[in-house]
Amino acid sequence: MSDTTVETSIETGGRRSRRDSVRRPPAGSTIPQLPPGVARRPFQPTKIVSDDQVEAIHKASLQVLSEIGMDFLLPEAIDLLKKSGGVKITGDRVRFDPAFVEEMVSHAPSNFTFHARNPDKSIPIGGDRMAFVAVGSPPNCHDMEGGRRSGNRADYQKFLKLTQYFNCIDASSGYSVEPIDLHPSIRHLEALRDKATLIDKPIKCYSLGRQNVLDAIEIARIVNQVSEEEMVNRPCLMTIVNTNSPLKLDNNMLMGMMELSSRGQIVCVTPFTLAGAMAPVTVAGAVTQQNAEALAGLAFCQLVRKGAPVVYGGFTSNVDMKSGAPAFGTPEYMQSTLLGGQLARRYGIPYRTSNTCAANTVDAQAAYESVFSLWGVTMGGGNYIMHGAGWMEGGLVASFEKFVIDCDLIQMVKSFLQPLDTSPDALALDAIREVGPGGHFFGAQHTLARYSEAFYQPIISDWRNYQQWSAAGSPDAYKKANQVYKQALENYVQPPMPAAVRAELDTFVDRRVKEGGVKTDF
Amino acid sequence: MSDTTVETSIETGGRRSRRDSVRRPPAGSTIPQLPPGVARRPFQPTKIVSDDQVEAIHKASLQVLSEIGMDFLLPEAIDLLKKSGGVKITGDRVRFDPAFVEEMVSHAPSNFTFHARNPDKSIPIGGDRMAFVAVGSPPNCHDMEGGRRSGNRADYQKFLKLTQYFNCIDASSGYSVEPIDLHPSIRHLEALRDKATLIDKPIKCYSLGRQNVLDAIEIARIVNQVSEEEMVNRPCLMTIVNTNSPLKLDNNMLMGMMELSSRGQIVCVTPFTLAGAMAPVTVAGAVTQQNAEALAGLAFCQLVRKGAPVVYGGFTSNVDMKSGAPAFGTPEYMQSTLLGGQLARRYGIPYRTSNTCAANTVDAQAAYESVFSLWGVTMGGGNYIMHGAGWMEGGLVASFEKFVIDCDLIQMVKSFLQPLDTSPDALALDAIREVGPGGHFFGAQHTLARYSEAFYQPIISDWRNYQQWSAAGSPDAYKKANQVYKQALENYVQPPMPAAVRAELDTFVDRRVKEGGVKTDF
Repeated sequence: MSDTTVETSIETGGRRSRRDSVRRPPAGSTIPQLPPGVARRPFQPTKIVSDDQVEAIHKASLQVLSEIGMDFLLPEAIDLLKKSGGVKITGDRVRFDPAFVEEMVSHAPSNFTFHARNPDKSIPIGGDRMAFVAVGSPPNCHDMEGGRRSGNRADYQKFLKLTQYFNCIDASSGYSVEPIDLHPSIRHLEALRDKATLIDKPIKCYSLGRQNVLDAIEIARIVNQVSEEEMVNRPCLMTIVNTNSPLKLDNNMLMGMMELSSRGQIVCVTPFTLAGAMAPVTVAGAVTQQNAEALAGLAFCQLVRKGAPVVYGGFTSNVDMKSGAPAFGTPEYMQSTLLGGQLARRYGIPYRTSNTCAANTVDAQAAYESVFSLWGVTMGGGNYIMHGAGWMEGGLVASFEKFVIDCDLIQMVKSFLQPLDTSPDALALDAIREVGPGGHFFGAQHTLARYSEAFYQPIISDWRNYQQWSAAGSPDAYKKANQVYKQALENYVQPPMPAAVRAELDTFVDRRVKEGGVKTDF
Repeated sequence: MSDTTVETSIETGGRRSRRDSVRRPPAGSTIPQLPPGVARRPFQPTKIVSDDQVEAIHKASLQVLSEIGMDFLLPEAIDLLKKSGGVKITGDRVRFDPAFVEEMVSHAPSNFTFHARNPDKSIPIGGDRMAFVAVGSPPNCHDMEGGRRSGNRADYQKFLKLTQYFNCIDASSGYSVEPIDLHPSIRHLEALRDKATLIDKPIKCYSLGRQNVLDAIEIARIVNQVSEEEMVNRPCLMTIVNTNSPLKLDNNMLMGMMELSSRGQIVCVTPFTLAGAMAPVTVAGAVTQQNAEALAGLAFCQLVRKGAPVVYGGFTSNVDMKSGAPAFGTPEYMQSTLLGGQLARRYGIPYRTSNTCAANTVDAQAAYESVFSLWGVTMGGGNYIMHGAGWMEGGLVASFEKFVIDCDLIQMVKSFLQPLDTSPDALALDAIREVGPGGHFFGAQHTLARYSEAFYQPIISDWRNYQQWSAAGSPDAYKKANQVYKQALENYVQPPMPAAVRAELDTFVDRRVKEGGVKTDF
C-alpha cells in the first residue's frame, strides 16, 4: 500500500490548487484531512452534578440578579429594560425579576443555522452539534522562525488562510491575531474585507462601538447577498459579548447586543469569570456568577428581539493562587465546562466553550491543557468551540504551529465521535473465522477491503520506530507542525467570490475607509 | 501568600525523609501532591453504543468461542476443561458452550481489595474506583541525560522509588523496565525482592513458568505475613495474562492462571488485539475478538476456582496502515476503550485499561496521546489503569520524565473527579454580594479562607508569564519533568519492613537464588 494511495483517499476535494489538478503535488505535500462537516456527538453529555444541584445554581443566579443586580452602562439599554416592567433600576444598577429572566430566556432558539457566504459552509449551531472555530483575539503571534511578535495584517491574513484551508475549522473567529498595523479607525473595515474575501466560512465581528458594528453588519449583508429584511431571518454574523465580570455590561457590548439582536444576528454572551479574581474562588460560585451574568445578557437580547439567535458562553477557569496568573485546561476548567453545559441545556440554548491552554511554548503542557479542554468541551456538550485552534499563553499568543496541532486534535475528537459501526460486517466473524487462532489479519479480505480508510490518519503524530525517527533527525511535534503550517499556506486556495459581490464589497469598504472609518480615542 | 505556605499545605504526610523533620528542604524541593487514595468516578461512564449493540458484540463473541474456538496450549488446562463438560475439544482447540461461558463468568466478583503489605496502601478494585498503576514491561528506558538505553536493575529500582514516592500511583506494575542485567533464571527473585522492599504498595508478577509464579506467590505470602490458607481470601498478587491473539493462550499464561486463581490471587486477562494486525481492522470486530478471548480466559479462571478475583483487560488499539506500526492514544483506541468498558460492566467484572502513547519523545504528541487515553479510560469506566505513568513508544520505552508528567496528568484527572461542592457556602452568594459589580475577589473573605487549597496545584505546568518564563531560560515541560524526577528520587524514603519479615524474605530469596532459580532456555 503506497503512501500516495492512502493520502489521496483522505485528502478531500475542493482544497487543491488548480496547479495540482495538472501536476500531482510532491509526496508529503498533501495534508491528511477529514471531510468538512460539523461534528455530531453520538452520546449524552456527562452530568457532573445532579439535576437538583443544577437547580440550586440556577436559583442562586436568579437571586444574584434580583438582589445584587447588574450594572448596564448604556442609557438606551436602561430605557428598554425600564419599559419591560421586569426590572428595578437604580442608576446603572438593574435588578431583575426572576420570572422576567426566565420568560425572556425561554424565547431563545435552541438551535439555528449560522450562514456563510458559501452556503455549503453554513453550520448548524446547537443540539448535538460541535462546531470548531479558529483562535480569536490574541495581541501577539508566534512561529518557530519568527518568534513572538505583535500582531500584524500579514500574520492575520495567514491565520485566515489556515482557517479556510483546514476542513475541521468550521468558522472564523474575530481576529486570530490583532492586525495592529491597521489604524484602529479603519481596522475593522480592512480586517473584515480580508476575512470576507480570504475565507467563505461564517464570520464574526467585534462589538467596539455602534458604527463599528453597523459596518460589520453591512459587510455581512453584502457578502451574503441579502436585503436588510432578509437578513433578519438569516444569521450570518456573530459577536462575542464579554461581561465585565463581576456583574457589569459596558456600553460597547450593549450596543453590539442591540444592533445584532435587533437584526436577528448572533450574540454569544460569555462572562469572563476567573475563579479567585473576577469571580468567587469556588467552581460552583464562579459558575453561579457566570450563569447570572449570562442570563442577564441573554434575557436582554431576547428583550431586544424575541427569538434572536443567542449562545450561552462559558469561560470559567481559575487563577494560579500563587501569582494571580490565569490558568487554563485545568481540572477546575473541566469541571466548570461540564457544569456550564448542564446549565445551557437546562435553558435549551446552544453552548459556547473553548480549547484553552496557558503554555508558553508548543510542548507537552500546551498539548495536555488543550486535550483536557477538549475533553471538558466534548463531554460537557459544547456546541460552538471558540479558540479551537492556535490559542496559547492564555490567549496572549496565536501560534501557527499550535494551530496545526489543534487541527489534528480536533480531527481526532471528530473521529472519536464517529458512530461505531456494529453491523455484522463490522463485527467481522467471517474474518475471525478466515484467520483463525494464531494467524494474522494483514492479508485478510476484510482488512484489504478497508485498510485505506479504516483508521484516522494523523497530521502530526509520528509513528515511525525510534531508529527511523532518529535517522530523520528526531523531529518533535512542534517541528512537524512548523512544516505543516507552511505547507497548508502553500496549499491554500482563495475561495471564489462573484465579481459583482466583490465590487459591492470594495465600494462599501473603500467609501467607509475614505470617510475615516470610526472615531477613536487617540 | 508565600510559596512555602501553599506547598506545605499540599505536600502530604508520610513521604518526608527523617532529615526533613529536622531541616526544611530548600524552597522548590517539595513536589505538590494530592493525598493518597484511589479515585472515585462521580458520574456514569459514557455509553458509546446502545445496550443492543453491546448484546450484539456479546453474542458474536460467544459465537467465536463456540464455532471457531480458542487454542489452549497446556495439557492440564485441557484436562480441566474436558472435565467441566462445557466445552468440545479437538487437540488444543477448545470450543465453548455459550451457556457454560456465561455461567462461569457470573462467578467472578464485581469488586475486591488488592492487598498491599502496608494495609494503608491496599486498594479497592471495581465499581466506580480508578486505581493508577506504574508503567510495566518496556525493554528500554530513557531520560534526558542518559538517553535511550536497555533496561537494567539500577533504573528498575529508580522506577520503583518513583512508584512509591508519588501518591497518585496506587500500585506497582511488573517491571517498569526490564532489569536485563539480572540473569533470567533469578531475575524474578531479585526483582521481586527489590519490589517487596522498595515499595509497600500492591505488587504484580509475570506468568513466565510454574516455578517462577510459585516463587512470586511465596514472596507475596511472606511480605503480607499470611499463611497459605489465609492467602486464598487475601488477594495480594496480580498477574497480567496476555492472550496470543488471535485466539490462543500459551502454556505459561495458563500455568499462571491456574496457580494464581487456585490461590485466590488476581488474574487480569488482557487480549492484545491490535486492529488490522492480530484482530479485525474494524473497531467493533477487534473488540468482538478481544471480548471472546477475555471471556475464555475469565471463564477458565472461574473454572479453576469459582469466585477467584479477575479483571477484564481491554487493550484494543490500531496499527498505522501505512507501516504496520502500532498506534496508541488514537480515536480508535478511545472508542475501543469505551466499548470495552460497556462489556466489562455487562459482566460485572472490574475493567483494566491503559494510559498509552506511541511518541518517541516527551513532546506534544506524547502528551495528547496520553490525555486522549486517559479520556477514554476515565469516561470508559476503567478501574485499574496500567501504564499510568511512564509509558512511551508504544511500550518500548519507560521514560523518567514522562513518568512525572503522567503523574501530573493523573493528579489532574483525580482533581477533575472530585465531587463538586454546591453547598450554599460554595455558591458564594455572600461573596458576590460583598464584592458587587466591578470589584474583584482577591481580597474577599471567601477567597482568603480558601485560596491555599482552592485549586489544583500542578507539578509540571508553568504558568509564569512569557517574560518571566523567558528570563528563566524558557524551560519546556520535558525539562521541568527532568528536574522533578530527580527531586522525587531524592525525596524518596524507603518504607519500613519489620526485621523478621525482611529476614524471612531474604532467607527465601537467597535460598532460591542459590538453587539457581528457574530453568531457562539458554
